[in-house]
Amino acid sequence: MSLVLYELLGKDDLRFSPFAWRVRLALAHKGLVPDEIVPCRFTEKHKFAFSGQDKVPVLVDGPATIADSWKIACYLEDSYAQHPSLFGGAVGRGLAKTLNYYCDGQLHPAMARIILGDVFASVDEVDRDYFRKTREVRFGMAIEAMHAERERHVPAWNAVLLPARLTVRDQPFLSGEAPAYPDYILFGTFMWARGTSAFPLLAKDDPLYAWRDRMLDLFGGMARKAKGHPL
Amino acid sequence: MSLVLYELLGKDDLRFSPFAWRVRLALAHKGLVPDEIVPCRFTEKHKFAFSGQDKVPVLVDGPATIADSWKIACYLEDSYAQHPSLFGGAVGRGLAKTLNYYCDGQLHPAMARIILGDVFASVDEVDRDYFRKTREVRFGMAIEAMHAERERHVPAWNAVLLPARLTVRDQPFLSGEAPAYPDYILFGTFMWARGTSAFPLLAKDDPLYAWRDRMLDLFGGMARKAKGHPL
Repeated sequence: MSLVLYELLGKDDLRFSPFAWRVRLALAHKGLVPDEIVPCRFTEKHKFAFSGQDKVPVLVDGPATIADSWKIACYLEDSYAQHPSLFGGAVGRGLAKTLNYYCDGQLHPAMARIILGDVFASVDEVDRDYFRKTREVRFGMAIEAMHAERERHVPAWNAVLLPARLTVRDQPFLSGEAPAYPDYILFGTFMWARGTSAFPLLAKDDPLYAWRDRMLDLFGGMARKAKGHPL
Repeated sequence: MSLVLYELLGKDDLRFSPFAWRVRLALAHKGLVPDEIVPCRFTEKHKFAFSGQDKVPVLVDGPATIADSWKIACYLEDSYAQHPSLFGGAVGRGLAKTLNYYCDGQLHPAMARIILGDVFASVDEVDRDYFRKTREVRFGMAIEAMHAERERHVPAWNAVLLPARLTVRDQPFLSGEAPAYPDYILFGTFMWARGTSAFPLLAKDDPLYAWRDRMLDLFGGMARKAKGHPL
């Protein structure tokens, strides 16, 4: 059976989708290697129209087509139950959903207030109009205006990180002694920044800084080897 | 072996400590019933000075003395490993810590901005000076001033609840299909309000409203039977 991942493509072959990184690390955790990774620009939704929806990542595993990083993680957990577990059981899976909403609903907007101008500069030329239009509606202001005032949003970004920061001060990973899907959820957020922005989002003495380093080392340095800013 | 829980006592026998509720529900989850519950006012720290620190809850289980709700939960999980699991494994335990910090560091301050005046009215007469002094330092303003402007803090409270709200829209409990320690962590926060305040913190159509109802029903309606506002 062939395993194919459709993921977002930026300019100069950049891969900065936080959701794609969640899936990439989930696949690696399960010991699975995609036979093919199909890069898709924002405006190339026709490439995965067969999935019946308009967002990447999409995973095709033989006859199965799954969209949405959370659903893909659950699919992998259930379909590859004998491989290393992503959630470590029902409580881990249940609570990982809360973390997923925390990252998508609180961390991502807080980070976007700081790096969105850099993300804009990292999308492919053909996607720039699409990106500007959709994001300026979402944030209610011009990308350049957001970029100009980004320093003002650093305190809110640091505040919203607090639960994750204190956790990895106490233990190596959000998931405890070893990484699992909760770590991949949060790490995807940082890979979004790494692929697009040189802005120093974490102080060197932040426990999350060392955690991010540990994450970059996983699976033979898979994420560290990806093109991006070496933060 | 005897099992003794030292917990906070308010006026009129009120028990509104969110941390004590975490422990009470964790004990019930493990099928354990304390032989004795020792109520302690804020200014009765001598009652549990033997624990070597100055905060309740404290659990004494035969020769073991454990302070701090998180440490108590971990102690119960490890010492009563054959009883129903509070964390469902290492990933659940790891990530529960993040939720613990989210509740203590983000939800509690957001809720306090709304109910602290009510909490103040619920502490025992002898504790009022202690409570005022410590809380007014913590929040940097008079309790009455906080109370007067509490409506202003409702949007922030609703925003910080988002990850939990969306989770229980998708599934019955934070922990998945069945409740576990993550639910007791969050529920303790709501028991703090229930014991002290009539302020409507959740709209009736909020998925958390129905979740709170499910939590109040657990263990024979243990929490619902406790003295408090019937919200």
